[in-house]
Amino acid sequence: MIIDLRSDTVTKPTEGMLDAMMSAEVGDDVFKEDPTVNRLEERLAKMFGKPKALFFPSGSMANQTALKLHTNPSEQVICDKYAHIYNYEAGGASFNSGISCHLIHGHRGMFTASQVKEAINPDAFYYSQTTLVEVENTTNKGGGACWDFDELKKIKTVCDDHNLGYHLDGARLWNALVEKGETTQQYGDLFDTISVCLSKGLGCPIGSVLIGDEEVMKNAIRVRKILGGNMRQIGYLAAAGLYALDHHIDRLKEDHKKARDIGAVLSELSIISKVEPIETNIVIFELESHVDESEFLQQLLNKDIRIISMGSNKLRMVTHLDYTNAMHERLLDVLNDF
Amino acid sequence: MIIDLRSDTVTKPTEGMLDAMMSAEVGDDVFKEDPTVNRLEERLAKMFGKPKALFFPSGSMANQTALKLHTNPSEQVICDKYAHIYNYEAGGASFNSGISCHLIHGHRGMFTASQVKEAINPDAFYYSQTTLVEVENTTNKGGGACWDFDELKKIKTVCDDHNLGYHLDGARLWNALVEKGETTQQYGDLFDTISVCLSKGLGCPIGSVLIGDEEVMKNAIRVRKILGGNMRQIGYLAAAGLYALDHHIDRLKEDHKKARDIGAVLSELSIISKVEPIETNIVIFELESHVDESEFLQQLLNKDIRIISMGSNKLRMVTHLDYTNAMHERLLDVLNDF
Amino acid sequence: MIIDLRSDTVTKPTEGMLDAMMSAEVGDDVFKEDPTVNRLEERLAKMFGKPKALFFPSGSMANQTALKLHTNPSEQVICDKYAHIYNYEAGGASFNSGISCHLIHGHRGMFTASQVKEAINPDAFYYSQTTLVEVENTTNKGGGACWDFDELKKIKTVCDDHNLGYHLDGARLWNALVEKGETTQQYGDLFDTISVCLSKGLGCPIGSVLIGDEEVMKNAIRVRKILGGNMRQIGYLAAAGLYALDHHIDRLKEDHKKARDIGAVLSELSIISKVEPIETNIVIFELESHVDESEFLQQLLNKDIRIISMGSNKLRMVTHLDYTNAMHERLLDVLNDF
Amino acid sequence: MIIDLRSDTVTKPTEGMLDAMMSAEVGDDVFKEDPTVNRLEERLAKMFGKPKALFFPSGSMANQTALKLHTNPSEQVICDKYAHIYNYEAGGASFNSGISCHLIHGHRGMFTASQVKEAINPDAFYYSQTTLVEVENTTNKGGGACWDFDELKKIKTVCDDHNLGYHLDGARLWNALVEKGETTQQYGDLFDTISVCLSKGLGCPIGSVLIGDEEVMKNAIRVRKILGGNMRQIGYLAAAGLYALDHHIDRLKEDHKKARDIGAVLSELSIISKVEPIETNIVIFELESHVDESEFLQQLLNKDIRIISMGSNKLRMVTHLDYTNAMHERLLDVLNDF
Repeated sequence: MIIDLRSDTVTKPTEGMLDAMMSAEVGDDVFKEDPTVNRLEERLAKMFGKPKALFFPSGSMANQTALKLHTNPSEQVICDKYAHIYNYEAGGASFNSGISCHLIHGHRGMFTASQVKEAINPDAFYYSQTTLVEVENTTNKGGGACWDFDELKKIKTVCDDHNLGYHLDGARLWNALVEKGETTQQYGDLFDTISVCLSKGLGCPIGSVLIGDEEVMKNAIRVRKILGGNMRQIGYLAAAGLYALDHHIDRLKEDHKKARDIGAVLSELSIISKVEPIETNIVIFELESHVDESEFLQQLLNKDIRIISMGSNKLRMVTHLDYTNAMHERLLDVLNDF
Repeated sequence: MIIDLRSDTVTKPTEGMLDAMMSAEVGDDVFKEDPTVNRLEERLAKMFGKPKALFFPSGSMANQTALKLHTNPSEQVICDKYAHIYNYEAGGASFNSGISCHLIHGHRGMFTASQVKEAINPDAFYYSQTTLVEVENTTNKGGGACWDFDELKKIKTVCDDHNLGYHLDGARLWNALVEKGETTQQYGDLFDTISVCLSKGLGCPIGSVLIGDEEVMKNAIRVRKILGGNMRQIGYLAAAGLYALDHHIDRLKEDHKKARDIGAVLSELSIISKVEPIETNIVIFELESHVDESEFLQQLLNKDIRIISMGSNKLRMVTHLDYTNAMHERLLDVLNDF
Repeated sequence: MIIDLRSDTVTKPTEGMLDAMMSAEVGDDVFKEDPTVNRLEERLAKMFGKPKALFFPSGSMANQTALKLHTNPSEQVICDKYAHIYNYEAGGASFNSGISCHLIHGHRGMFTASQVKEAINPDAFYYSQTTLVEVENTTNKGGGACWDFDELKKIKTVCDDHNLGYHLDGARLWNALVEKGETTQQYGDLFDTISVCLSKGLGCPIGSVLIGDEEVMKNAIRVRKILGGNMRQIGYLAAAGLYALDHHIDRLKEDHKKARDIGAVLSELSIISKVEPIETNIVIFELESHVDESEFLQQLLNKDIRIISMGSNKLRMVTHLDYTNAMHERLLDVLNDF
Repeated sequence: MIIDLRSDTVTKPTEGMLDAMMSAEVGDDVFKEDPTVNRLEERLAKMFGKPKALFFPSGSMANQTALKLHTNPSEQVICDKYAHIYNYEAGGASFNSGISCHLIHGHRGMFTASQVKEAINPDAFYYSQTTLVEVENTTNKGGGACWDFDELKKIKTVCDDHNLGYHLDGARLWNALVEKGETTQQYGDLFDTISVCLSKGLGCPIGSVLIGDEEVMKNAIRVRKILGGNMRQIGYLAAAGLYALDHHIDRLKEDHKKARDIGAVLSELSIISKVEPIETNIVIFELESHVDESEFLQQLLNKDIRIISMGSNKLRMVTHLDYTNAMHERLLDVLNDF
């Protein structure tokens, strides 16, 4: 029994999902003739109360496309220093869109409306022009933290006042919705564009969807084509997404509970100096400075437990669909032995 | 019975292919842990005698990545005026790589080594620097024509003499190999990078693979990440590719025969002024100037036959895996009635 | 006496111009406080009947800025295969703006409205979007040819019908105006943006000016800043421009007459197979195929005469302000001796 | 008597400099035939012990070219949060080079070698690749602070260990050299590329020079051409530079002394909460929070004194060549009256 907590991206389709995939009706999506992907896109658009949704092979491409749709080369996007678009998309914002990031030093990947206001460049030709604000919910590097919806609304007001676009990287938005009892419609009302992931918490093999307003999404398919994301019979992947929307959202609560269980055990261990507050399915903790990180990772590996390092003695575990109750018991046992 | 000859991309997986897909062993390819995609990449690399192969969600992304790997912004790639990278990738060469195309006015999408030599810019700082030659085999807009391998070798010599990269857009290379009795190894020996398509002739739902030398492929996975092409459990798609390599290459001869049959009938029609020579699975023909193109297309549509226009009274039909014998008979009957 | 006919860029300021430069009132143009450059910009804007004009360190930067102002990455500009922006700006269109050129194979660098219409890409997401038409008057590589103003008007209609920008590279527009008896106002009425050169025919040491409409020029100063063209006390250069507008336009007729004289002599020489029609100050001629180009260039050099090669046995001479009557007599003598 | 302390860029050439300009021997620098600019480039290269130097119309273009020469799109440069290239070049790093900045939160625009080490991204395909370190000496936004040369050497070691380029934005390097008693050769030994400004402290109307090693400068002229910085008879500007190297370096001490005088007076004022340490010619100070910035600026303006705001009640004065002793006395009087 290998326990893989490196990421919630490692899940494999359940039998039910695989059945759904196998029996999907497909077509050539480049001609927009794949009925299953059309259904998925329409369903997600409707869930968020938006006119447009578009399937992407990855969350990175959905985000990169959103950045491009909102900006012109030389402009600047405001985001947190932990933002996925700044840290983990290989410099794509500058490569694909020719833009830079103004990083806010927030709290667990989140910031305030007044921090946004301060981060807007003055209107002079020698400054990069600020045109977009990007937030991530839940925050990945911030340990799965959930934004306060009221703060998101205040930021929206700043965006409106300064004519800034507002994009949500919702790679793990489902976790926030379930945890906070919020709705997709609420988020659709607030943001111009939202990317959601079908892999990660939802357990699909591949895919993200970008959802947005008519005007900003007008060139989305063109940008997707330019980046090389236009695919053919993707109904197989879309079918997994439809299945997940039906079956894998509510159950995220289980992942959150397990994460909290793990956190509780970790907090008791003498070799661990700090466990970050656990709100959803991500557990970030720090080893005492005298503990050797690679040694610790190896000890876990010897027991078939895989987690990842985030640098500076910080480690991350992510619970997910394939992390079973049996695995959970085993993990807690192993941890308790440290 | 709908007869769809718009493109060979419209095929749907056969039962055998679908079985292979759904029983695929998968993993998270971002961690390079998907055994099926690893097997596909290794197999294709070996077939072409190259060290590296990488799966892509589309042929456009495989080509765009190759362009980026070979060039730096401001440089120039030599290709035919019919090249897919110039015409049908939405301006991606300039967007993604900041490069321009020097178009050769070749014959049916093909050109000569001496035309390449003439197209190389002199070495002065006010010229764009020529650094890459790109060919397409078979040619798409050139009507499925196959290159003369000796000419490709002569072009290689020009590339070597002038320190130019050499990329093959092999979206329909399989058709050329089968038709000309050439081998993947021959092509691997000649080109620095080769993109091959698993959709089109091979009938897979999704996917292309870029194959190349160690040095040039070094950053391929990084560029794929930047463009957003890194996906998770893609073994489902790779399994289709492996199945197609086993079962769908030789049968391309059937597609070619059917294309020639269609050509023979078209040549006899008074409303048609010209049928381009048919070498593989693409049939391009021209209506007499007095014939109204959209009326002609509508007449076919009324009989459930779909083909596409290439502009200026030129039309295209493409035969493929899903174009059955029954459809073939029916089409010939319909055409004979014109 | 060195006779330099390589380009009309080699001129040095006359005494009068140098006096004007050195007595210029200057200020920091980054704060828009240089009174002389302000005067030059206002004067040129008014001459062309446009609201905005901006000084640039080079014609290349004025053109590159115009391309950027009119386009977004991935789009396409229609121009002649001889266009300076395609051939002699080092691949800048793709580097700076991420755009490609659709080259029309025109006549001496000029094309027709119907060729423009054909060159516009259809409106589909897999095509690069056509958004700009660029013309050059006089044409450089086209041998100083002048456009027919009626054709330029017809092209304007095509631009309006298809929502395309319309830019004039007027590096040698002054020559065309003088030769054809046309006015700056006529050109201002037609084009959205116009770049004019103060060097070349006008004899200034440095500088070009981009003139255009309010909306399109809105970000011109920002783009100039990004490219690094914002300078400080440039009144010295602007003063030369003001002087040239007063003293060096009408005299271009002399350069044209001398060019025609040279052409007449060249036409008589047995070693020369062809002299292109001479309309302004550029003489392009072709050596008989048996004549060795570099030997011919060396023979001229031995007599202190410098001209340049354009490749394929084609050579170019350009007359200008520093090409005196004495030089002219001497050159004609030398040529008559061949 | 207008006292302009907004920047040291506002200076106008002295009579001696203007004479030098007026009598400059010039030529077409695009053909590299301007003897005066050639002399300036050779002299500066030699001063820094480097093989190559190239004239630019602005410091921004010299820096932007350096960034491009050192990096490829998607890569990352490490610099201070106060860096000119991040703050005041209009987003050019992302626009021109497709790169991002990793900002170090240093002290007065300066940081340590160990901060550099921490800022280097790990070597994985999903991170932007770190390839360059950039420092500014003196720091502009950091209040004219001078780097500790030993720290610069330690950073060089980190660069060597991690194969990073090392660029110095020396817009005000002359001030540091004079203040610290350091030599150009020392800096040439340390950095791969150095941009120095001829305007600012040196008092020329226009121009910066990029100095560097053979390999990295190989494409400098090409990049300058792409950005539009290749100019014609620039000997007039180069002559000013040569004059300034002879006459305007040592005198920078006067500017520094005056700046310290100003600082001493400001420190005594009750409306001022803080004066940053003054090392060279820049004085940055902060108004007490109850003082209205725009009112304060207006009061100065009423007495013909111009300074600029840096945001958040911070103000900047810069002393320079045109700031005379008479102005100095007057300013101190005015300030003492607050």
